[in-house]
Amino acid sequence: MSDNQVKFVLTERELPTHWINLMADLPPGAPPPLHPGTKQPAGPDDLAALFPLALILQEVSAEPEIEIPDQVRDVYRLWRPTPLYRARRLERELDTPAHIYYKYEGVSPAGSHKPNTAVAQAYENAQAGIRKLTTETGAGQWGSSLAFACRLFGLECEVWMVGSSYDQKPYRRSMMETWGATVHRSPSDLTEAGRSQREHPTGSLGIAISEAVEVAAQRSETNYSLGSVLNHVLLHQTVIGQEALVQMQMAGEEPDVVVGCVGGGSNFGGLAIPFLRRVLREQATTRFVAAEPAACPTLTRGVYAYDFGDTVGLTPLMPMYTLGHGFVPPPVHAGGLRYHGDSPLVCGLVRAGLVEPRAYRQNETFAAAVQFARTEGIIPAPEPAHAIRAAIEEAEAAREGGEPRVILFGLCGHGNFDLSAYDAYLAGELEDPEFSEEELAEALAGLPEAPALS
Amino acid sequence: MSDNQVKFVLTERELPTHWINLMADLPPGAPPPLHPGTKQPAGPDDLAALFPLALILQEVSAEPEIEIPDQVRDVYRLWRPTPLYRARRLERELDTPAHIYYKYEGVSPAGSHKPNTAVAQAYENAQAGIRKLTTETGAGQWGSSLAFACRLFGLECEVWMVGSSYDQKPYRRSMMETWGATVHRSPSDLTEAGRSQREHPTGSLGIAISEAVEVAAQRSETNYSLGSVLNHVLLHQTVIGQEALVQMQMAGEEPDVVVGCVGGGSNFGGLAIPFLRRVLREQATTRFVAAEPAACPTLTRGVYAYDFGDTVGLTPLMPMYTLGHGFVPPPVHAGGLRYHGDSPLVCGLVRAGLVEPRAYRQNETFAAAVQFARTEGIIPAPEPAHAIRAAIEEAEAAREGGEPRVILFGLCGHGNFDLSAYDAYLAGELEDPEFSEEELAEALAGLPEAPALS
Repeated sequence: MSDNQVKFVLTERELPTHWINLMADLPPGAPPPLHPGTKQPAGPDDLAALFPLALILQEVSAEPEIEIPDQVRDVYRLWRPTPLYRARRLERELDTPAHIYYKYEGVSPAGSHKPNTAVAQAYENAQAGIRKLTTETGAGQWGSSLAFACRLFGLECEVWMVGSSYDQKPYRRSMMETWGATVHRSPSDLTEAGRSQREHPTGSLGIAISEAVEVAAQRSETNYSLGSVLNHVLLHQTVIGQEALVQMQMAGEEPDVVVGCVGGGSNFGGLAIPFLRRVLREQATTRFVAAEPAACPTLTRGVYAYDFGDTVGLTPLMPMYTLGHGFVPPPVHAGGLRYHGDSPLVCGLVRAGLVEPRAYRQNETFAAAVQFARTEGIIPAPEPAHAIRAAIEEAEAAREGGEPRVILFGLCGHGNFDLSAYDAYLAGELEDPEFSEEELAEALAGLPEAPALS
Repeated sequence: MSDNQVKFVLTERELPTHWINLMADLPPGAPPPLHPGTKQPAGPDDLAALFPLALILQEVSAEPEIEIPDQVRDVYRLWRPTPLYRARRLERELDTPAHIYYKYEGVSPAGSHKPNTAVAQAYENAQAGIRKLTTETGAGQWGSSLAFACRLFGLECEVWMVGSSYDQKPYRRSMMETWGATVHRSPSDLTEAGRSQREHPTGSLGIAISEAVEVAAQRSETNYSLGSVLNHVLLHQTVIGQEALVQMQMAGEEPDVVVGCVGGGSNFGGLAIPFLRRVLREQATTRFVAAEPAACPTLTRGVYAYDFGDTVGLTPLMPMYTLGHGFVPPPVHAGGLRYHGDSPLVCGLVRAGLVEPRAYRQNETFAAAVQFARTEGIIPAPEPAHAIRAAIEEAEAAREGGEPRVILFGLCGHGNFDLSAYDAYLAGELEDPEFSEEELAEALAGLPEAPALS
């Protein structure tokens, strides 16, 4: 590598051929999801109304690697492999001996890592003869990714978009429509769930999920698609970390710490899993940091318990850190991180001490994002701004300790649709919204009855 | 190359080391710019109040190649080399035997090709001891690029943004401010020019140029920066075409036709010049197509004459195709193409028959853009949608003729900030705004007195 190289690029030939399934490397006996009614372990059959068999098999697979279908790799080629950068300008600004690297997923058509799984899910549904996918979306990152993926495989796509976002972020809606999707404001009059929630006109992710699930469950040619949390979603995202592993080798460095933001866990998992497998196999001693918002501190303040994945209680009970499915996070701009729970896989790794969670307040993440934009050029989305904040913290610790440190973080999307938040920050008008201890206690008191987790 | 390769990537090692100056390959005797007062050839001294010597020397250079400073290449590394794609999915959709390639500049921090020259201009101004750059911006592509570049070289940046855009596109303003620039709504009260135009509260590019030039001309530590039209701007953009030339060789193909959209000419010139030089040197027989809006048909309906570069007549007289400096193009969304004139260099090539201009109406360009987005994934800016329309026309001609054809076009930016226009198009509410023949005749009647051009 040259002395001033900043970008590590791979050719199409180096596109990963397999996804990495970390379940194969974890000790057996992980708690299973439970049927929401019977509280018995939920099996593949319980998911068949919503997901095609191929994805269900991926969800429960014990194989260490799963081959990526050629048709999925053909779509990945439109933007993958993605670049890995060394943040030399940020390092100089921080006056740190640390080396900071970031893997950038904002080059995808939808501008984030979400298409990595949207394409895989659309493909498997099309193979299974499904005609339409339904989903929910908050700020629109996931809905636009699925709209794009459905278009390429000839599927219809119907998106329930959280009412407040629908009103405030018309451009994400335009993006979905440009790719041919139908977008509804949620709560809508099209579903029982929506009609029952007319008193909450601004909507919520929980309501939107209920609407999308209700429609998919009723129609045989329609399935539902989820953009995070589940094992198969994290699986698809492992293309990120696999490429980063090769690119770090090109840079001739071994990361001491891998950092990602966590909402549902798929961005963090996608980057970290290939590195985590090396730690589990005792080939490396990497640390892992999961950065979340202080306004929705699932991993740092939640309890480890069975809880519903959605607000109204339609989904299986998942073993995870949770703030309670009734918890409504205050309105931070990092909409992708406003989730009461987290991927069971990531939660298990936190529980096992392999992943260290940290929570950051909104203003400190925007300060980090602006510092990053002014040195590295890219304006980050509010979600990865949390990872930037944690990476800067690591770099400052290296400076204070006078020690070298190699930091790799995931820059999972650009902030082109989030500039009103930057506006507020630069005007000194950005809030650090908080929840009350009473709200959290009340949500935790509403956890469903279920076996305790060890 | 593999049978299904779609992306041709270069490493930092393959970043161009020189810019290409086409002036060296053109026959001598090109008409010079004229001083607006004396109507005598304008020399380097006439530009010294606004530009540093290094850029003036580039503007008038007869050297075939000019070395890119290391510090400029170091910034280019943040996003360059940019990818070249084969549009296999679009080809299939069009059922054409043509091979369609596109060079994508939307991966830059500002989302277009503009940073290629912004960085070079900011660097040379910083080297010359200048503290601040002023400029105008319409929709904000150029202003955000210069804001980014100034930040990296420690310069202040002051942008006059056309009033109507300032009101309608707050996110581009936020982007400039995130990179640390000061943004004024034009017409402003800060300048004589602005105060004289209070009766035009929505502003115009011409007024904004006058404000930025007025401030730069009055202060010794402040210079002005222009984002297109001039020779040195086209020079800086030739990194695009040089990379594309190497990438087409990687693909094993020779373009039959190179297509770009034209506003001021720097995007078109940047892609085409390296290919044009091969034609001038009789190493190739490539055709060139310049795509412009029918609402501002400079190359297809303008006259070839001396005219001012700005509306109020402060700049030198430039030899170019022009609709008259008083022509106010109707409000198409491709704001970057709404310019009454064009680069004298590009105009000379059109005049010589080397470049074929074509004009397209707004709705047909958006139809092409949506077709592109639904096959290739990237949502294009309204400006390169004109190039896409022309490229599709070429591909359809190949299909009708039953003949192979290799098409290369420039995709100079993404449309993330233009989704309201897509909204209007998808709703069937997009207009094809027109000017009246009287308006055009009146603007042409207002051309300044100057020597006729042959």
